[in-house]
Amino acid sequence: MTRLSLSAVIVAFTVTTDEGVRTGAVVFSHEDGEAEEFDMSKVIRVNMTDRSVCVEAVPEGWLGLGGRALTSTIVAAEVPPTCHPLGPNNKLVFATGLLSGTPAANSGRFSAGAKSPLTGGIKESNAGGTASRLLSRLDVHALIIEGQPKGDSWFGLRVSKDGVVIEEETETLGMGNFAVVEVLTRRWGEDIGIISIGPAGENRMAISNISVKDPNGKLRSFGRGGLGAVLGSKKIKFITVDGTGASSVPLADPAAFKKAAQIFAKTLLDHPVSGKGLRTYGTAILVNILNEVGGLPTRNFTGGQYEDHDKISGETMYDTIVERGGQPTHRCSPGCVIQCSQVYNDKEGKYVTSGFEYETIWALGANCCIPDLDAIAEADGLMDDLGVDSIETTVMFAVAMEAGILPFGDGKGVLRMLREDIGKATPLGRILGGGTGAVGRLYGLTRVPVVKNQAIPAYDPRSVKGIGVTYATTTQGADHTAGYAIVSNVLNVGGVVDPLKNEGQVELSRNLQIATAAIDSTGLCLFIAFPALDIPECLAAVIDMINARHGITLTGDDVVALGKKTLKIERAFNLAAGIGPEQDRLPEFFELEKIAPHDVAWDMPTEELQSFWNF
Amino acid sequence: MTRLSLSAVIVAFTVTTDEGVRTGAVVFSHEDGEAEEFDMSKVIRVNMTDRSVCVEAVPEGWLGLGGRALTSTIVAAEVPPTCHPLGPNNKLVFATGLLSGTPAANSGRFSAGAKSPLTGGIKESNAGGTASRLLSRLDVHALIIEGQPKGDSWFGLRVSKDGVVIEEETETLGMGNFAVVEVLTRRWGEDIGIISIGPAGENRMAISNISVKDPNGKLRSFGRGGLGAVLGSKKIKFITVDGTGASSVPLADPAAFKKAAQIFAKTLLDHPVSGKGLRTYGTAILVNILNEVGGLPTRNFTGGQYEDHDKISGETMYDTIVERGGQPTHRCSPGCVIQCSQVYNDKEGKYVTSGFEYETIWALGANCCIPDLDAIAEADGLMDDLGVDSIETTVMFAVAMEAGILPFGDGKGVLRMLREDIGKATPLGRILGGGTGAVGRLYGLTRVPVVKNQAIPAYDPRSVKGIGVTYATTTQGADHTAGYAIVSNVLNVGGVVDPLKNEGQVELSRNLQIATAAIDSTGLCLFIAFPALDIPECLAAVIDMINARHGITLTGDDVVALGKKTLKIERAFNLAAGIGPEQDRLPEFFELEKIAPHDVAWDMPTEELQSFWNF
Repeated sequence: MTRLSLSAVIVAFTVTTDEGVRTGAVVFSHEDGEAEEFDMSKVIRVNMTDRSVCVEAVPEGWLGLGGRALTSTIVAAEVPPTCHPLGPNNKLVFATGLLSGTPAANSGRFSAGAKSPLTGGIKESNAGGTASRLLSRLDVHALIIEGQPKGDSWFGLRVSKDGVVIEEETETLGMGNFAVVEVLTRRWGEDIGIISIGPAGENRMAISNISVKDPNGKLRSFGRGGLGAVLGSKKIKFITVDGTGASSVPLADPAAFKKAAQIFAKTLLDHPVSGKGLRTYGTAILVNILNEVGGLPTRNFTGGQYEDHDKISGETMYDTIVERGGQPTHRCSPGCVIQCSQVYNDKEGKYVTSGFEYETIWALGANCCIPDLDAIAEADGLMDDLGVDSIETTVMFAVAMEAGILPFGDGKGVLRMLREDIGKATPLGRILGGGTGAVGRLYGLTRVPVVKNQAIPAYDPRSVKGIGVTYATTTQGADHTAGYAIVSNVLNVGGVVDPLKNEGQVELSRNLQIATAAIDSTGLCLFIAFPALDIPECLAAVIDMINARHGITLTGDDVVALGKKTLKIERAFNLAAGIGPEQDRLPEFFELEKIAPHDVAWDMPTEELQSFWNF
Repeated sequence: MTRLSLSAVIVAFTVTTDEGVRTGAVVFSHEDGEAEEFDMSKVIRVNMTDRSVCVEAVPEGWLGLGGRALTSTIVAAEVPPTCHPLGPNNKLVFATGLLSGTPAANSGRFSAGAKSPLTGGIKESNAGGTASRLLSRLDVHALIIEGQPKGDSWFGLRVSKDGVVIEEETETLGMGNFAVVEVLTRRWGEDIGIISIGPAGENRMAISNISVKDPNGKLRSFGRGGLGAVLGSKKIKFITVDGTGASSVPLADPAAFKKAAQIFAKTLLDHPVSGKGLRTYGTAILVNILNEVGGLPTRNFTGGQYEDHDKISGETMYDTIVERGGQPTHRCSPGCVIQCSQVYNDKEGKYVTSGFEYETIWALGANCCIPDLDAIAEADGLMDDLGVDSIETTVMFAVAMEAGILPFGDGKGVLRMLREDIGKATPLGRILGGGTGAVGRLYGLTRVPVVKNQAIPAYDPRSVKGIGVTYATTTQGADHTAGYAIVSNVLNVGGVVDPLKNEGQVELSRNLQIATAAIDSTGLCLFIAFPALDIPECLAAVIDMINARHGITLTGDDVVALGKKTLKIERAFNLAAGIGPEQDRLPEFFELEKIAPHDVAWDMPTEELQSFWNF
């Protein structure tokens, strides 16, 4: 790792293409002449049109950005908002966070960004796994994949300390993600990071995701927005990351970093949600909680409580896992202390799935009326293998049930259609693979829970109104993680806002969305928000870690400013793509149909909702 | 027919419901106190939620409006722009034109309007047939269908001089339109007007249209925008119009009307396009013309000329029809002097189809590479029977061919999929029934010729740039009839504008779109535009007819103002529905892919395109 002064610097770079290697240089001059230290991390561009690779120093305007802030900045700067998301002008950007690769707890995530084929707007999705840490150690701050090959050939990308090699690929085509991991591990060893798509991404389905190998050789995902189809449209089946020869990520002030990291980790473990609830029961702890408050959408959003909630609860899952010798706690990425993932085994004690999330369990359980954790777990594993977003896909199945494609409660039907239809891209598979909105449109239904064509997850916006504001206003299409109002609406974290009233919801969602955009830029897991909202030392420690890592002097205000700027960049992209304030709203049926047990509809005045962007 | 002074008037109305009849009154007061005469024509509201019918006098604000101007005004005033197009808040409006029901040549058309389930924006579609004249004679100026029944029952509406009766319907459910006409003719006689949907509309498919019985018991259609799905969402299989006891439409100045009508009819017959070209060869005369200028999109818009154009040309069609004892000329509505329709028979001389249009022949012929008029004619008849838009459906088939659903050139495959898949709403049928954009999205394609999700017809915007401006900017989604720039780009009617240059195209399209919005409000066929553009007496005669019919003093400026106002009302609705300037554009592939023989791409600057709305 080289350190450079920015007052006047020439950074050499190397370009590796199929035809060979060439070098160049970038000249930096610092505006106010003050020297400031920064890492010589790289941006790698892979152009699939001519199959060239270009390694650049991070441009000055992108310094100090990471994760979502960086992917959204790059996409907004370089992707024409009106381009076809599966055409040559879209770009898929991977970016590590400001704390990626450091010893900080829960810093193992990274972001992927592009114009989404599902929403038509800007998309950032982040995931755990091992690739983020490896990319950081290789000084790869961002990997930009652009262009599009002509012809039918598929490719794999190999990232290593020597750059990126683009190789034609045949062996893994058509394979599920688990088989891809197996083949590539055999090919290049257990330590490589793997980013891949399954058959759904190859078939450019809107429900497809991008998988990342986790520390146990299982899968995590860039789940939402159909990014698998974007990688598929570039004809890339996988990206491997080989960390051989990489050094550890440098820290400007190791002692200060260590001190802050310890405080940070302690706050994660001290908070009851991150340190106990999630750690013990995983995110499925929310089944009973949401059922209790009447916010658990049931039978395609026609009710708010599910009679069989006990059969699919986190508590039941925990008991089942322990009884069958699975793992009730499990980390999705190196350095995670929350460990909300788990390993779920079948009755014979054989591995079925991990990363078994509340949203999936809710969607197939309560919303599709399948009170059977084993069937849901099997579907979860299958979805990982096919490479489909487990939220979009499962919410879609409830709409498919309402369309009469299969009956409510038909768990076997779901498994069969995943395997035989989505997996094999039959005509029915193409319909289901189009996602929730597509099924609704093709069957002429009106009860179709999507915003900006992306499925609404797990929390009914009529009885938990803060999350409704997030669904309606986020740049991402319906996404609970964009501004998780459940914290103050339901969990009494970071304050209390009555979930049934409109008052205070816009402000709550706005503050959370700003904070989330900032957190998503660090490489930290969003679940740090629980202690960050309740324990003052937590956020201070995060800022101290960033400063100690980069040798800078960020303040809390700077972090808020970063969050705001990121949201506004995303919003500007969406507006230029034709996604305006008229699309910042929930589907009409939430206004027309009241939901039990509180007998409430969605009644947030449009003007109040649109005041979200007043910042 | 009663005439009323508007200075201060109370109009009595009658409400007919299942429960009985009630009466009421509407009080009018004229703003400036001047008395003005108007017809006491009626607006009938049918509310399908409570199955009530309300007959109202035409509100003051709607006086002087007809056809498209009236449907768009009503939809904009009463339909929430963000409502679900298939939900209870959408309304389907039928409106007769300012000259409907009069003896004027080619005045047999009427308009249907709603929020479109295909485009998500406002929609006006107009059709011939016999119902328009019957509605006018019954003084029904507009029929507004609103609300939505709960439950599974379907209904038929019977319009007569006694009002509207809503009756539960079972016999015709699932039937194609031809069988519906047969059953209803048996039930109520040959003279009734019939408006109906086929299986596609019942299944709420986005490609579905609404059919209207023509003078020969065959079908014409409100083709575009999926209006059949809107009628289907109201659970209405058909509307019959019984003209028994109706009087003829009154004329304020019969002598002046007769004089103007004679001049008007003469101009129609004098102009070479309307009087000879269309009259002899139908619209299919355009096959060879567009092929010649390189604007005949071929093989899903990958070329501009079709080697087998002779096999599908209007000239070949004419010879075939004559040889087989069909009718080379045929009228779609009473009083048509152009008679561009025809009756196409098979080799045995048996009826196959009528209203066999250039766009259908182009799409299945050149664009799907099926050089077989017999197969295309069979598909045309089938589409009428199923009740699907023959433009959306046939353009979709070329995209389906590119998706690999069936091979290019597979005419038998098209027929089979129409009959077995679209007709029976199989999963594949649901995909195809979603239209061109849906197929493109589900199969992850980029060469998908749609604007605002509606298929681009028959004229390549790269080599005929004026029509590209219309496709991009019209409020209706891609629609050649919205501003038929072919006139001056290709046919040298109304001036000459070089089709390959950007200069002058926006102005051409703007003028044509304004004129078209006005013509679409009269109940006249759009083909009157040919003489109207070239023969000064034509437009003057149209205005004279309107004035003589209504006893008013419209000028040419008033007509232009009506067209402008109509466009702006539609535009405002679209903006409020979230369809902004970013959607006033062609798909990206037209910019990225040049087309033979002129080797031209679409390169209209965005700013120039968006200047369309500067009026």
